[in-house]
Amino acid sequence: MSAGGPDEFEIIAKYFSWPSARSDVVLGIGDDAALLTVPAGRQLVAAMDTLVEGIHFPAGTAARDIGYRALAVNLSDIAAMGADPAWTLLSLSLPRSDDSWLEGFAAGFHELAVQSGVALVGGDTVRGPLVISVQILGHVATDGALTRSGARPGDAIYVSGIPGEAAAGLAVIQQRLAGSPATRFLRQRFLRPEPRVALGQSVRMVASAAMDVSDGLLADLGKLCAASGCSARIDLERLPASAAMRSLFAASACERFALAGGDDYELLLTVAPGRESEFHRRLAGETACTRIGEVVAVAGAGDTVQCCREGRPVSVEAAGFDHFAPGTSA
Amino acid sequence: MSAGGPDEFEIIAKYFSWPSARSDVVLGIGDDAALLTVPAGRQLVAAMDTLVEGIHFPAGTAARDIGYRALAVNLSDIAAMGADPAWTLLSLSLPRSDDSWLEGFAAGFHELAVQSGVALVGGDTVRGPLVISVQILGHVATDGALTRSGARPGDAIYVSGIPGEAAAGLAVIQQRLAGSPATRFLRQRFLRPEPRVALGQSVRMVASAAMDVSDGLLADLGKLCAASGCSARIDLERLPASAAMRSLFAASACERFALAGGDDYELLLTVAPGRESEFHRRLAGETACTRIGEVVAVAGAGDTVQCCREGRPVSVEAAGFDHFAPGTSA
Repeated sequence: MSAGGPDEFEIIAKYFSWPSARSDVVLGIGDDAALLTVPAGRQLVAAMDTLVEGIHFPAGTAARDIGYRALAVNLSDIAAMGADPAWTLLSLSLPRSDDSWLEGFAAGFHELAVQSGVALVGGDTVRGPLVISVQILGHVATDGALTRSGARPGDAIYVSGIPGEAAAGLAVIQQRLAGSPATRFLRQRFLRPEPRVALGQSVRMVASAAMDVSDGLLADLGKLCAASGCSARIDLERLPASAAMRSLFAASACERFALAGGDDYELLLTVAPGRESEFHRRLAGETACTRIGEVVAVAGAGDTVQCCREGRPVSVEAAGFDHFAPGTSA
Repeated sequence: MSAGGPDEFEIIAKYFSWPSARSDVVLGIGDDAALLTVPAGRQLVAAMDTLVEGIHFPAGTAARDIGYRALAVNLSDIAAMGADPAWTLLSLSLPRSDDSWLEGFAAGFHELAVQSGVALVGGDTVRGPLVISVQILGHVATDGALTRSGARPGDAIYVSGIPGEAAAGLAVIQQRLAGSPATRFLRQRFLRPEPRVALGQSVRMVASAAMDVSDGLLADLGKLCAASGCSARIDLERLPASAAMRSLFAASACERFALAGGDDYELLLTVAPGRESEFHRRLAGETACTRIGEVVAVAGAGDTVQCCREGRPVSVEAAGFDHFAPGTSA
């Protein structure tokens, strides 16, 4: 971990130096760079995601939740590749050295690092506006990664968990809805996304394509389709229902949350017709996945992702989706 | 490269998608993560450095120089390990999408990426204050990396290039000194640090320890000593002289720049007595290195790094070094 001055050294030593059980960390924090051993027969998987206050989480979010979230959104990228997470680097730009904030942030980050078996091996802390960048590194069997580009017409489209609950949780926070089991549940769904690492690993050999949902189901499915050179049909009545969401919001709002709300960090998966039974076998014990539609051939003009209700195409743009910008700032 | 919305996709496609000749990039920008091949028998080297306007470069610095610098300071960490740079991920937090700024930034980043053979394989762009995080990945022969911890009493201490010129260049910029060949030269030394990648590779098997100088020679040598469990003596009269620096600044200021100014991104190297002739053989054709002192045993109380003038210990703190905070904000 390179240092911007004595302060930084103290911050790193005090808050970010915890023992790791990983024997593949030859050299961790403290030198100019980390030295790591990638196992033979594995490809390196690398991603980087940045969080800015007011854009990726509301101002006032607890430091512990920010720390957790910063690692979670990166682990979600590893999950989408079906890979094994291994190491992380953290760059923290902070207006001032605030002990209780740093303690909380480090605790949240550490909590998920331990849970996911990831070692913090480097990065830096600098003085500046609150911006958090996390680099995640992992590995996967050579040529065995899930990608966005493998979907083919006829493949079933699945989504894990219940998309929309995170966006509903953000609405709970922003609208300061009164505390109840439902609001507390949804708040947690926003504040503590669960990266679907185990799910990605389980279905790696069976799914034809995968992607994590960070910018909203429709927007992200559109990207998967673009990468795969195909289109998609979503059957709106198949979207998994959330009791907590339904108890607080109108059905139309729930549908909007599910289709356009980001931050779910669930996985979108496509599965070829002949592999669906194996797919379901591999799901045993994992996060439930719901079949929400089908990959179709590109049909000239029109939306890449076509929404249908009871078999009839509907225009979701006309229902107000244009007002929902992708991302957590929605 | 994960996306924060359609804007980000456009930005990435427009400014940051250039072809790379690296065959070890299995999957670059455009999926949830990059897929990379680390050659057999090599360890992965990973570092991350963040740049904040006003802290790591003066406000008003040309976007092209910022782009170059963001990659340069990271390559310098790879150089300090004696490793081969390979891949980079870039996270750009930007207040607004400014075409000419993005064009300039991308051009500077691209310029050095091509020059150093590094492929940009991922990252993200987000809306936020101007903060640039770069992740650099490389590799090195297993157990062959240079580290900070190998210095032993009796080893010679070398520094590459002319430390202090970057700090003098920053002073030229901040004091708005009139244009002249000397001011232009020093400005470039600050704006365009040259990561000593080839030098690190050349001396990897010969040097006992290495570190790049980002926070000032004395501060960084102190960290190398701490990692190696030893102390150091610097002979001030051996510091390499810079004609440009001398033409603009008093001798005492030049010494301060050399000892306490950061941003040089030169390499500090230690060499065991029996390896010095081989060290010099390997230097042929590389950046000149100057022997500036010696590693000594820890001698109880006192500074880790002792400065001497004509053989006599001098206190550089007394000469005003306390007023120089490490880092580019000095």
